[in-house]
Amino acid sequence: MKDKLRKFRAVRIKEGKRQDIEEKVVREAVLRIFLNEKEIVALSCTPCDLTYLAAGFLLSEGFLGDVTEIEKVDSSEAKVVVHTREPRKVGEESRLKGVLTSGCGRGKTFASWEDIDPLEDTLIDLDLSFSSDEIHKIMSQFQQRSRLFMETAGVHGAALATGDGILLFNEDIGRHNAVDKVLGESFLKGIDLKDKFLVISGRVSSDIVSKLWNSGLSLVVSRTAPTSLAVEMAQRLGITVVGFVRGGRMNIYSYPVRIA
Amino acid sequence: MKDKLRKFRAVRIKEGKRQDIEEKVVREAVLRIFLNEKEIVALSCTPCDLTYLAAGFLLSEGFLGDVTEIEKVDSSEAKVVVHTREPRKVGEESRLKGVLTSGCGRGKTFASWEDIDPLEDTLIDLDLSFSSDEIHKIMSQFQQRSRLFMETAGVHGAALATGDGILLFNEDIGRHNAVDKVLGESFLKGIDLKDKFLVISGRVSSDIVSKLWNSGLSLVVSRTAPTSLAVEMAQRLGITVVGFVRGGRMNIYSYPVRIA
Repeated sequence: MKDKLRKFRAVRIKEGKRQDIEEKVVREAVLRIFLNEKEIVALSCTPCDLTYLAAGFLLSEGFLGDVTEIEKVDSSEAKVVVHTREPRKVGEESRLKGVLTSGCGRGKTFASWEDIDPLEDTLIDLDLSFSSDEIHKIMSQFQQRSRLFMETAGVHGAALATGDGILLFNEDIGRHNAVDKVLGESFLKGIDLKDKFLVISGRVSSDIVSKLWNSGLSLVVSRTAPTSLAVEMAQRLGITVVGFVRGGRMNIYSYPVRIA
Repeated sequence: MKDKLRKFRAVRIKEGKRQDIEEKVVREAVLRIFLNEKEIVALSCTPCDLTYLAAGFLLSEGFLGDVTEIEKVDSSEAKVVVHTREPRKVGEESRLKGVLTSGCGRGKTFASWEDIDPLEDTLIDLDLSFSSDEIHKIMSQFQQRSRLFMETAGVHGAALATGDGILLFNEDIGRHNAVDKVLGESFLKGIDLKDKFLVISGRVSSDIVSKLWNSGLSLVVSRTAPTSLAVEMAQRLGITVVGFVRGGRMNIYSYPVRIA
């Protein structure tokens, strides 16, 4: 937890009384991600699991098509370099056309998702199914794992889960970074995502749906709301969006067939 | 409110029972911002007050130094073009060196804030002061104004306030966009920011502090947490960060002299 927190002196005013306190604050640092010799992005993040973050970002944003393209990852505190086996040309255009999304993701598929025809293109497997009880159980575990949030109230969480439990969990000041850390860890560890789902603490925006699509995931579960574009994309791409999983209820915005 | 919401059919599962419902979801759309003929960024946002958003983004991110540089703003649903009186060169470098922050801002000052010497450079006015009662009163008004949040739970809010009340308020799916809409409106209406403060619903990250610095604001107030880099920057730049304004208390992380 040490690398994720810093203590600051602060003044607390409570019911009109001033008091000197020491407060835990979540760490924020800048990470530069390189694909071979080319700088792709600088992310503001919580400085832990940076290898996962970089691999997850490059794969879930479509800069890399597959984890097997990665030869090795060199990581230092402020910089991660992902080396590919084959030379890989990253044109200026992929950066310049990037969308600065509502969070910190870069919505590569924004321009193209409307071209997808669910009847023509391969939809993600619709046979995958979880019960609403399983979803509630996993969300409860998710909240218990959110320790950095409990310490600082300054981060978002993300997890990869099956109906049995949470496999991977991470937290970051950026809600997309938390997702990328979990996705990056699953890619690098060779975990098959097809029968798993993503749990997030924050909103389901279009860039989150885009990351699911690029990763082969077909279900995302959140405690809170989706956006309109996220629901529209999910309806087109065959992805199930479940929101407001709390207080014994949930809303399913697309492909409810996956929740039994 | 119409342009900010879309209704979707959804399935609600409550205590094991399935029910077809219609749910309000906050709208998300992509806005492309041009400075003269040059595309600066594509933002994922709630499509309202796009002129404010574009002007606020360009000014608070340092692409423009002053609102008087703006000749006119052409706005359509998916594109805003800000025209300047004088030709203005935006080099590739200002985009390519941008930091993709924990939200959707572009932390222009990241590379440079450490070079600022508060003893040498002009610090923002330290005479500005508000009482903790005023801060609590404004936060209470802020929550009452957050109607899109109450409808959708999918947005962040931002406001410009004095001790007497809220002057400007806006909401957006992106927490930086909400701030940029408020700042842009204040720039375009010629509102002097020096004796006002910013209220936000979300976390105070370094990019928010950077936007304050670029806008001449010296106090930000939030219901929730700051990040370490935000506090470090605020300490250096002479900006007061107040967090966790709720339940009759608040924490002041920098320059507590401004809260009486």
